[in-house]
Amino acid sequence: MKITKMHGLGNCYIYVSTFEESLREEELPSLAIAVSDIRKGIGSDGLILIGPSEAADVRMRIFNADGSEAENCGNGLRCVAKYAVEHGYVGSNSFTIETKGGIVEAYAHRGANGKVGRVTVDMGVPMFGPAAVGYLGAANGDAAVIAVGEDTFEGQLVSVGNPHFVAFVENAVSLPVAEIGPHIERHPDFPNRVNVEFVTPRGQHELDFRVWERGSGITYACGTGACASVAAGVKRGLLSGRVTVHLLGGDLEIEMKDGHVWMTGEAVEVLTGEYPRS
Amino acid sequence: MKITKMHGLGNCYIYVSTFEESLREEELPSLAIAVSDIRKGIGSDGLILIGPSEAADVRMRIFNADGSEAENCGNGLRCVAKYAVEHGYVGSNSFTIETKGGIVEAYAHRGANGKVGRVTVDMGVPMFGPAAVGYLGAANGDAAVIAVGEDTFEGQLVSVGNPHFVAFVENAVSLPVAEIGPHIERHPDFPNRVNVEFVTPRGQHELDFRVWERGSGITYACGTGACASVAAGVKRGLLSGRVTVHLLGGDLEIEMKDGHVWMTGEAVEVLTGEYPRS
Repeated sequence: MKITKMHGLGNCYIYVSTFEESLREEELPSLAIAVSDIRKGIGSDGLILIGPSEAADVRMRIFNADGSEAENCGNGLRCVAKYAVEHGYVGSNSFTIETKGGIVEAYAHRGANGKVGRVTVDMGVPMFGPAAVGYLGAANGDAAVIAVGEDTFEGQLVSVGNPHFVAFVENAVSLPVAEIGPHIERHPDFPNRVNVEFVTPRGQHELDFRVWERGSGITYACGTGACASVAAGVKRGLLSGRVTVHLLGGDLEIEMKDGHVWMTGEAVEVLTGEYPRS
Repeated sequence: MKITKMHGLGNCYIYVSTFEESLREEELPSLAIAVSDIRKGIGSDGLILIGPSEAADVRMRIFNADGSEAENCGNGLRCVAKYAVEHGYVGSNSFTIETKGGIVEAYAHRGANGKVGRVTVDMGVPMFGPAAVGYLGAANGDAAVIAVGEDTFEGQLVSVGNPHFVAFVENAVSLPVAEIGPHIERHPDFPNRVNVEFVTPRGQHELDFRVWERGSGITYACGTGACASVAAGVKRGLLSGRVTVHLLGGDLEIEMKDGHVWMTGEAVEVLTGEYPRS
């Protein structure tokens, strides 16, 4: 089976084209588990399939390293876009990708050598407030205050398809995210739990960012979290225009346009190869 | 750069043939770090080079995931043997491999399809006693007793190129290795530290095995530890002939012959591919 390993900000998947490989539905979870295993497989956060779509130009399906199917992944979307353009599956640099979470517009930044280094994707229209994120406690407009030990954190409640609690703090980079994050993620007023972002603007166009991802903990990069954070910052008047978000795994450029949040970032090919299927 | 990922009992490396690829000495540590990184590289325990030797049939060099060069690795040796045979670098199934720790004899078990599934390697002559492992405390012949909290562990002192403390226990599989291991590894009477094995014979030809590896902690497989354990068990009269050792990552077959310890186990190809070098 032909595979490609790609990453965006260190969020890495094994990519397989179902234009070329035929895979049976029932083997997908076990294949995702097998390729993701660093010891006896390749090593990744999961498996992403790129194939034909009836509703968009291409379709992507994401399987996590535990075999479960995910709805969407911003870092994966960018790599799918790179792959689709470089393999000639789409006729233009501007096209649509069908995901389990809906259809996404993508634009591939293609270099003179035909290779795609960066991709911009439309991450949709952010929704604000308690109902958007399933928060049951008392809110102050779009914001909520959560106590963690003797500290309190005020966070903006934002959904970009998944729920986020975005806390503007003095210094996101030095905060003990692993200690604070789980208390907010699992606070009883978030019965479906929540992704937790700690952010610090450096002027209007730059944002320090750390994340505690729901179900995953500290990760290198959370595309939806970066989008939610910029949407919240723009709404508060703290950010404007094109914002460079500094994540642990690298930078993303995020911009609000016509109510949509657009994300631009790298898509990097690590390896192409042949993975023997038994 | 052409790469192959192989593993033995889950101990996985990226293999590169210097018969085919030319690599500069100064880039090897950074290349090992890069390919080993699961996030932005491939994902492995390190990089192994297979190339020409003046002293043996082929030469192997091992670079750990941190870029440092290692002397030897039993699981890596088996994969090198598979690679050398399948790529025609050696004329016979029985040949020698030069390592930083010395020259090793290998025998590749080749199937009718030309592929090698299992490999036997000569892991050398085990040495027993305090001097062999750098133990400074009071010994009882080849054995030492180490107190850990309110418990004491009696272990055989064995070197197979690196130092081991082999404790015969009631039930190796259920022991809290992560709690006990570090206390023995870092006991002041082992100034160079020590690998710690907990083993339980099941009759003369089978051994349950758990390891706390010096510098690595709990690992799937420690080939030298399995060899040291069987050598110790044979010396104590608890084991004889061909012994199947049950490690966390799978089984090894180990046998003492003419004072040498011979190890047989799997060598598995996971992936062949092209890794772009920048």
